[in-house]
Amino acid sequence: MNTTNTSTALFVRMILTAWHLQNTRVDELLDKLTDEQLMQETAPGRNTGIYLLGHSAAVNDGLFKLLGLGERLHPELDEIFLDNPDKSGKVFPSIEAIKKYWSEINTALAVYFNNMQPDAWFEKHTAISEEDFLKEPHRNRLNVMITRTVHQGYHLGQMNYLLNK
Amino acid sequence: MNTTNTSTALFVRMILTAWHLQNTRVDELLDKLTDEQLMQETAPGRNTGIYLLGHSAAVNDGLFKLLGLGERLHPELDEIFLDNPDKSGKVFPSIEAIKKYWSEINTALAVYFNNMQPDAWFEKHTAISEEDFLKEPHRNRLNVMITRTVHQGYHLGQMNYLLNK
Repeated sequence: MNTTNTSTALFVRMILTAWHLQNTRVDELLDKLTDEQLMQETAPGRNTGIYLLGHSAAVNDGLFKLLGLGERLHPELDEIFLDNPDKSGKVFPSIEAIKKYWSEINTALAVYFNNMQPDAWFEKHTAISEEDFLKEPHRNRLNVMITRTVHQGYHLGQMNYLLNK
Repeated sequence: MNTTNTSTALFVRMILTAWHLQNTRVDELLDKLTDEQLMQETAPGRNTGIYLLGHSAAVNDGLFKLLGLGERLHPELDEIFLDNPDKSGKVFPSIEAIKKYWSEINTALAVYFNNMQPDAWFEKHTAISEEDFLKEPHRNRLNVMITRTVHQGYHLGQMNYLLNK
């Protein structure tokens, strides 16, 4: 393995470690929360825990397409948790189902990620044109993982407000 | 510039772009909030906006030492915003002062970052031993920036609750 490959693998490992850590922290929070707590608003008038969990699951599910890995597991989540706000009147899946989707999606993503070569992360994602990618090579698959990791952290900060003070 | 340098520069750019974006989002939020809003709790019984801003400033100020860049600008923030919780009874600097520190610290960090060579980001930070770093080379300066970017996103998710619904 030459120096380029070594540093590429290292960099990929840094980002994926951060990504998995955020998901693990959500899992740990879910272990602590009752269903009643998860149904609560994270702050008065703000998103409920269950909406933010469904939203997080939908965003992660979107990675299958955005990274060009394969078909999504739960595209039906988008209408409820991405295209519409909380309390839209849309019928949510059960808490049990949303937790299951969250877990299934992350497990399936991890299988893809474990099989990807480090260089594949520096290829373009599916939401950027070849032309733009030539000009902006940082808009690669791995960059998506950086923004998604921060996004998960953002909502985790809110979901942690569901815990008893 | 060889391939290694090119990809290293690209990694660094990806992370620093994410870092600056989080700071910019805090700045944009501060532009929207009144002093009264910033003094409020982000949710009932939770940290106030001003505490989280002081906390963010203290964490960023800690980077001067952690990355081995130089002396901190405001080490006095730690006692109030890192070592003690909100409502500890510690006297806070004024809102104006905390905003100024936040801005000064980020500006000074950006100057250092702009002058750093990409490879320097893959050197060890000051909180890890040479021995551990040999075994865990991902625990470098750039990795600190990943965790700090996610940390800022985490608190930004909470601080955004200060905005009017």
